[in-house]
Amino acid sequence: MPDLARIMLTLRPTHQDTVPAWTGRAAHAWFLQALQHINPALSERLHDMQGVKPMTFSGLQPAPDGELLTLHPARPLWLRITTLHPDLTNITLNGLAPQWEGAAITLHDQPLQVESMALETATYSDLVEAFRHKKLRRYIRFKFITPTFFKSRGLQIPLPSPELVFGSLLQRWQTFSTVGIGIDDFKDFMHQKITIDQHNIHTRKISFARGQRGYTRGFVGEVTFFSQAKEQAYLAAWHTLAAFGAYSSVGAQTSYGLGQIEVI
Amino acid sequence: MPDLARIMLTLRPTHQDTVPAWTGRAAHAWFLQALQHINPALSERLHDMQGVKPMTFSGLQPAPDGELLTLHPARPLWLRITTLHPDLTNITLNGLAPQWEGAAITLHDQPLQVESMALETATYSDLVEAFRHKKLRRYIRFKFITPTFFKSRGLQIPLPSPELVFGSLLQRWQTFSTVGIGIDDFKDFMHQKITIDQHNIHTRKISFARGQRGYTRGFVGEVTFFSQAKEQAYLAAWHTLAAFGAYSSVGAQTSYGLGQIEVI
Repeated sequence: MPDLARIMLTLRPTHQDTVPAWTGRAAHAWFLQALQHINPALSERLHDMQGVKPMTFSGLQPAPDGELLTLHPARPLWLRITTLHPDLTNITLNGLAPQWEGAAITLHDQPLQVESMALETATYSDLVEAFRHKKLRRYIRFKFITPTFFKSRGLQIPLPSPELVFGSLLQRWQTFSTVGIGIDDFKDFMHQKITIDQHNIHTRKISFARGQRGYTRGFVGEVTFFSQAKEQAYLAAWHTLAAFGAYSSVGAQTSYGLGQIEVI
Repeated sequence: MPDLARIMLTLRPTHQDTVPAWTGRAAHAWFLQALQHINPALSERLHDMQGVKPMTFSGLQPAPDGELLTLHPARPLWLRITTLHPDLTNITLNGLAPQWEGAAITLHDQPLQVESMALETATYSDLVEAFRHKKLRRYIRFKFITPTFFKSRGLQIPLPSPELVFGSLLQRWQTFSTVGIGIDDFKDFMHQKITIDQHNIHTRKISFARGQRGYTRGFVGEVTFFSQAKEQAYLAAWHTLAAFGAYSSVGAQTSYGLGQIEVI
């Protein structure tokens, strides 16, 4: 039984229209509504939950730089849904995903045809085992696909500071996994040994509603992190967290589409 | 008598040749050698000085992305020299700069013709007074012209974290100025109120010698900082430090060409 799932839907608009550029909130609402039909208690619990939720939604991608996303039948979009807890993963894989395949779904009042669905799953133990006996690189390269920012000391920080990126991943891992990542002093390693080797990043504005005054900014782009430590145990834990990041996302508002990453 | 000077030389190569891309160290050596002739004691003291030195050199600009800078008579270059202490400013303006105008100088064994020289000077009090009674914006936009990185906890950090950028400026100000910046708890303001609104940055590799294995990386690009505080006293101190930054540069290795900024 997998703990984690990552579902990639390819969606084709059925007519032409425009919606606000950032549809992460709409995807979140759509998912909870679908869940409502098969498990109302769980749907409500997730809705009311404070802090980091055990699921993420990319919103419709690629999202434009401007305020509006134009839907057009000639332009397919993708939506990534991830789940981080075994119970939610189970109900998503067995109760929800089978309904999506080949169906029409409605997001932000827009009918979209599901053209294809790709599925990856893992257990927390898988992610630990995968790196335990490998020869590991001292580099990890992330692509920040959707805007990412961190909250720290009440401020919004749109920078890939290693301790914020890997601190966010560690916190999520510890929230949702019953398996340890293999070392106890990961925080010290993170603070003392991980640096940035290269980056190419820029901020992007996000407002979830058209013409809304309130907005936030996150960064997108590529970042290569480097470990000054060579010890296998640290590198294994570090790569495990990075692989987990492709399910968990990093930073703030990950259940609304922000902080989606890929290890490249 | 000014405390600070910023001298911009436009230089024309007299023949074609190649030199390592980062000539900040060569400019540093050239300056100390020129100073040696008129004040050997000061030249030696600056050479042996630990920590932040009271002068910066941009190196020949624009510097290329690769390892080598091609000198060509058809392509003028610029070199910025700044001084941060009244004694050094005085001797630079009255002893050195007059020798440069219209002369040929030698940098990294390359003869370069000084085509023009532009000069800006200020006192620390000028920089404080300039912002004391103005209506001030809550934004400050920097262009990081040469690669910039910070040292913190023994790590190299190529990110424009507000507390590193303005912390570096505050430290320099306090090292070289006998005038206060106007508020005592600037550090708290910096930690609690300054965020990044926008950025567009990427790292660039720097090696000071051709084919050398050791290298470092800094970021270049544009960053807009935002103050959540509106109080005039804080904004004035903040803008004062930013204006000072165009003389002092920020971060590590500023006497070798790194961390040169412009307020834009």
